[in-house]
Amino acid sequence: MSRTNQKRVGVLGARGLAGQELSLLLMRHPGLELAHCWSVRKESQGQENPVSGAPPIESWNGGAGVDAVFLATPHGKSAALAAEALDQGALVIDLSGDLRIRNQVLWEQTYAQAHPCPGLLDMAIYGLTEINREQIQNAQLIANPGCYPTSILLGTQPLQAAGLLQEGAAVISDSKSGVSGAGAAGNATTHYGEVHENFRAYGVGDHRHGPEIQEHLGGPEVIFVPHLLPCYRGILSTMYVQLVEGSGAPEAHRALAQKYEHEPFVQVLDPGQQPSLRAVQNTNQCHLGIAQAGSQVVITSVIDNLQKGAAGQAVQNLNLMLGLPETEGLS
Amino acid sequence: MSRTNQKRVGVLGARGLAGQELSLLLMRHPGLELAHCWSVRKESQGQENPVSGAPPIESWNGGAGVDAVFLATPHGKSAALAAEALDQGALVIDLSGDLRIRNQVLWEQTYAQAHPCPGLLDMAIYGLTEINREQIQNAQLIANPGCYPTSILLGTQPLQAAGLLQEGAAVISDSKSGVSGAGAAGNATTHYGEVHENFRAYGVGDHRHGPEIQEHLGGPEVIFVPHLLPCYRGILSTMYVQLVEGSGAPEAHRALAQKYEHEPFVQVLDPGQQPSLRAVQNTNQCHLGIAQAGSQVVITSVIDNLQKGAAGQAVQNLNLMLGLPETEGLS
Amino acid sequence: MSRTNQKRVGVLGARGLAGQELSLLLMRHPGLELAHCWSVRKESQGQENPVSGAPPIESWNGGAGVDAVFLATPHGKSAALAAEALDQGALVIDLSGDLRIRNQVLWEQTYAQAHPCPGLLDMAIYGLTEINREQIQNAQLIANPGCYPTSILLGTQPLQAAGLLQEGAAVISDSKSGVSGAGAAGNATTHYGEVHENFRAYGVGDHRHGPEIQEHLGGPEVIFVPHLLPCYRGILSTMYVQLVEGSGAPEAHRALAQKYEHEPFVQVLDPGQQPSLRAVQNTNQCHLGIAQAGSQVVITSVIDNLQKGAAGQAVQNLNLMLGLPETEGLS
Amino acid sequence: MSRTNQKRVGVLGARGLAGQELSLLLMRHPGLELAHCWSVRKESQGQENPVSGAPPIESWNGGAGVDAVFLATPHGKSAALAAEALDQGALVIDLSGDLRIRNQVLWEQTYAQAHPCPGLLDMAIYGLTEINREQIQNAQLIANPGCYPTSILLGTQPLQAAGLLQEGAAVISDSKSGVSGAGAAGNATTHYGEVHENFRAYGVGDHRHGPEIQEHLGGPEVIFVPHLLPCYRGILSTMYVQLVEGSGAPEAHRALAQKYEHEPFVQVLDPGQQPSLRAVQNTNQCHLGIAQAGSQVVITSVIDNLQKGAAGQAVQNLNLMLGLPETEGLS
Repeated sequence: MSRTNQKRVGVLGARGLAGQELSLLLMRHPGLELAHCWSVRKESQGQENPVSGAPPIESWNGGAGVDAVFLATPHGKSAALAAEALDQGALVIDLSGDLRIRNQVLWEQTYAQAHPCPGLLDMAIYGLTEINREQIQNAQLIANPGCYPTSILLGTQPLQAAGLLQEGAAVISDSKSGVSGAGAAGNATTHYGEVHENFRAYGVGDHRHGPEIQEHLGGPEVIFVPHLLPCYRGILSTMYVQLVEGSGAPEAHRALAQKYEHEPFVQVLDPGQQPSLRAVQNTNQCHLGIAQAGSQVVITSVIDNLQKGAAGQAVQNLNLMLGLPETEGLS
Repeated sequence: MSRTNQKRVGVLGARGLAGQELSLLLMRHPGLELAHCWSVRKESQGQENPVSGAPPIESWNGGAGVDAVFLATPHGKSAALAAEALDQGALVIDLSGDLRIRNQVLWEQTYAQAHPCPGLLDMAIYGLTEINREQIQNAQLIANPGCYPTSILLGTQPLQAAGLLQEGAAVISDSKSGVSGAGAAGNATTHYGEVHENFRAYGVGDHRHGPEIQEHLGGPEVIFVPHLLPCYRGILSTMYVQLVEGSGAPEAHRALAQKYEHEPFVQVLDPGQQPSLRAVQNTNQCHLGIAQAGSQVVITSVIDNLQKGAAGQAVQNLNLMLGLPETEGLS
Repeated sequence: MSRTNQKRVGVLGARGLAGQELSLLLMRHPGLELAHCWSVRKESQGQENPVSGAPPIESWNGGAGVDAVFLATPHGKSAALAAEALDQGALVIDLSGDLRIRNQVLWEQTYAQAHPCPGLLDMAIYGLTEINREQIQNAQLIANPGCYPTSILLGTQPLQAAGLLQEGAAVISDSKSGVSGAGAAGNATTHYGEVHENFRAYGVGDHRHGPEIQEHLGGPEVIFVPHLLPCYRGILSTMYVQLVEGSGAPEAHRALAQKYEHEPFVQVLDPGQQPSLRAVQNTNQCHLGIAQAGSQVVITSVIDNLQKGAAGQAVQNLNLMLGLPETEGLS
Repeated sequence: MSRTNQKRVGVLGARGLAGQELSLLLMRHPGLELAHCWSVRKESQGQENPVSGAPPIESWNGGAGVDAVFLATPHGKSAALAAEALDQGALVIDLSGDLRIRNQVLWEQTYAQAHPCPGLLDMAIYGLTEINREQIQNAQLIANPGCYPTSILLGTQPLQAAGLLQEGAAVISDSKSGVSGAGAAGNATTHYGEVHENFRAYGVGDHRHGPEIQEHLGGPEVIFVPHLLPCYRGILSTMYVQLVEGSGAPEAHRALAQKYEHEPFVQVLDPGQQPSLRAVQNTNQCHLGIAQAGSQVVITSVIDNLQKGAAGQAVQNLNLMLGLPETEGLS
């Protein structure tokens, strides 16, 4: 049931975890109507929607008849679908990796394929809301950030912008994600027997989010090592940064606190406090802790990977694009 | 029931998790007889032993009548008890922090108290078996390493010994431990509701294991950040080290593989492989993975915190001290 | 910040799990203002409220200045506190066991003590909302049902009321609860190491909820065996009932479906479907499944023990008592 | 490396969880040599064995060259494979359901297919070791019991044999299994996100183990309801039985205690004690608790589903068939 002033939106890829989270958020969003859930996979069409109460899974219609399209589709497929929806006049938020790296050469190296739609790379705005808010407000096409990059860039980009990061020193992010980051498919990685009471690193030195973080942080070298936590939701990134001489945790704290002072979705904890995953699960919040450990400033950042790391930030971005209150449907 | 050639041993502090693990290991050790389980706490004496089949909890007798005493007692208390047992002629393995830092000033700063028995500091051998084997064989008093330091030093000390660590670059260890590292007491930290589906850092920049690691690694600055995993057993440390020019993951791999080539309890994984907590739980094993990530070599190390990180390494050390096969009772 | 039409309420015992859940619900309830959080324990007063944003913990004032008081205090203590609050003219919802069994002799046998306030037993209405709605609307004092009894009675009482239960046959409830049912205290029962990957029955034949279920079901013998699940929230009760000749699962399904047809918080699943704990966690819902297994009808019932099994049902009851919409603040 | 007196055995279906558990047990069994791991599935052949150190996966050779074959293959396939191995002169232990129900009509109804090899039904001995020991010693073909039936029959069959079960009263078993009972395949049932913090019943009234239990218990009606626990290993069955007049928990306790007095793998707990899953995980033990709850005697039984409920009991049976000590390789 649409209220007259609601904007109509659709989700492509509604059966994945990000798509399901999007459906849940959109169904309770007062300013948006979830009008369609689409699939490009023939076998999914006509199936029941895994989210109770959401529209049934229909065949993708190119994005006709809605004001905005969320693409929760795999990288390599999303960019072409984005082009179709843009042609229909819809705003597009792409949650895949297709448009997150503007540098085509770097993208093709990272994803080991030719870019499916290089013409869109320059048009897409990287949807890290708190950092790129103004551009997002005027965007038609959003590259919604990866979950790990969101957790890391929110904790480090303001330090880079403030000139606090020591030149020549690497930014190290030791990141840990719950298993929902590995998707909805039942396989060897997501089997309960593999996850519970276990822990390991993966993709050391070659995870696709590494170059994404690198491009959007700018200058310093980024070292990124992800791990798989024995829990379901959430990411905690522990970042080790070296600041310019004379600066340390107090200066980092001040820079981050100032940057996020009026932000509804980012909270800088008091010095000495450490964020916990629990506090942000099922929310669009990011909590940041700052401490000094010897020569390094240690920034810890927690988000819910399916909300601020995916569907929540996507809705936050669409709110901005539509001129709705930024927090609508998210608190 | 003692066989004639068995050595008699006792455990002081048998009700804690390390003490319980010791009892379990000692009961199935063919060369040792677990003759006594003691407590210095009046209220524990006469209580049933939490380990089924182990001796009842007796009042501490100073270590009389046994060949060796394991101290699974709190720091600040252990050193004086060690002195008593040494007076009785027993070999002593102290699992507390009392004797792990040889520098008295650093110890007192770290533990925020006067050292209870500074005369023992020089006598105690740091029981990181694979590194200090020769000294351990002739020792009467062992300072059994902390769980985090064991996981970290096994992965980094051989690189330092080989001159591979770049001078001036910090060694960063991002470490994660299961909740058994927080002990047997039921409290806010160990409540199921606090642990499950949660994750957080703690003690950033001021954990007591930091100075212990620093002293035994030697040269480079050590940055150590521990985290609490939502699982029960095991530690994974992810270490970021910068090697001297011209060296990287292959050189680190070679150095570690050579060092541990004949070690029964340390396994260096093939390049590209990452260790998992699961593989070492309930064993005395340490698995090491080595990978390059940009300018950093990433060493990942997993141990069981109660075995190689406490009771297992303690038994390994006593085996050496008694001239028994090093693996006896541990595989 | 109170809106003029909001009723003022207070919670006594706000530091326990039920009290915390109450605070969370009341803070987002549009028709109620959480005006006070009290404690009778000296050491708790002035402490920070564990629920962020809730009022600080004050000394109990007898319930002055509020329209309603929730007692999340231990049995044996609650009844006298209820009397104090009633004297102040407040409505009272007691979440303890003090007033759940109307028969004083049975109460004293069950709780192994003299009843602290027998005069209140006749006055208190048993707050199983869907069963006793009319009496609750006019009540001043509610005995809020236990978590296990709520799960069991919602699945069986309508069968008894419809005369479907075979005389002489026992109603067996095999019930399983997450560890939040064991409270907020960190102890041997709630230690992560005791709960995870474990499962056991407890209180077989002598759990206090047995007589409560028996009294409110009426006729048939009730056999109640609780178990502790390795998870945090929720209760699933599997009930085995024998129906009168000629009746079986279809008749039981029809009776329950009719009874709950218009209920916002009870959902009878289609025949062949089994409810899951997941679906009701963090909600005030009860889901019921009905199946035939040989001579027995098997009713499975799931609730969230802290919501429908405690704080949620308490708020549902107060909504009724105040003439507010029954679902307000609960969906 | 075979010692001269070792018997050679092989496992068909070594990639499943029961097959992996078998491989682990057989590799450390002093009297047996795990000579072959076979698969009938083409795509598995030549693959690495999931159990480190076990023989590689070979094409099934009919069981030639070994003294005994374990079939960890699916029902519907196993019986014909058993016939092949018997033809080769091998002893056969079939862990599937193919030969567990001797009544062909009941089998075909239960498994909804024609029996693949009805001629073997009479020959197979039901391998519930403590109940059928003598027949097992002389058997060539064992139908290894299902995991649920093992947990249930060990707790109830001796009561039936002793004439203690009230005629006309149903035996109700409310059973709960860890997720390893659902197999090694990664799918919707075994996904971490589906299992953790969740709980539900399944197969109510139509699980295949129901008729198996019914046939081997004999007389009374069996009601069997299985549930999926949020943990990995173990089964706890809570059984409700009504005894003949004048008998109750003490008589049940006496009957079970007598029956299992000298059994190495079944332990009857003292009255008032309840078994926990933890105590039997990774062992071949069954622990039984007995309590009175009103008119019913409540028997609780715990086993490890992969050991006493599958691979462990299979090895126990082969020990008997080969004249080896019954506990060899199992403690």
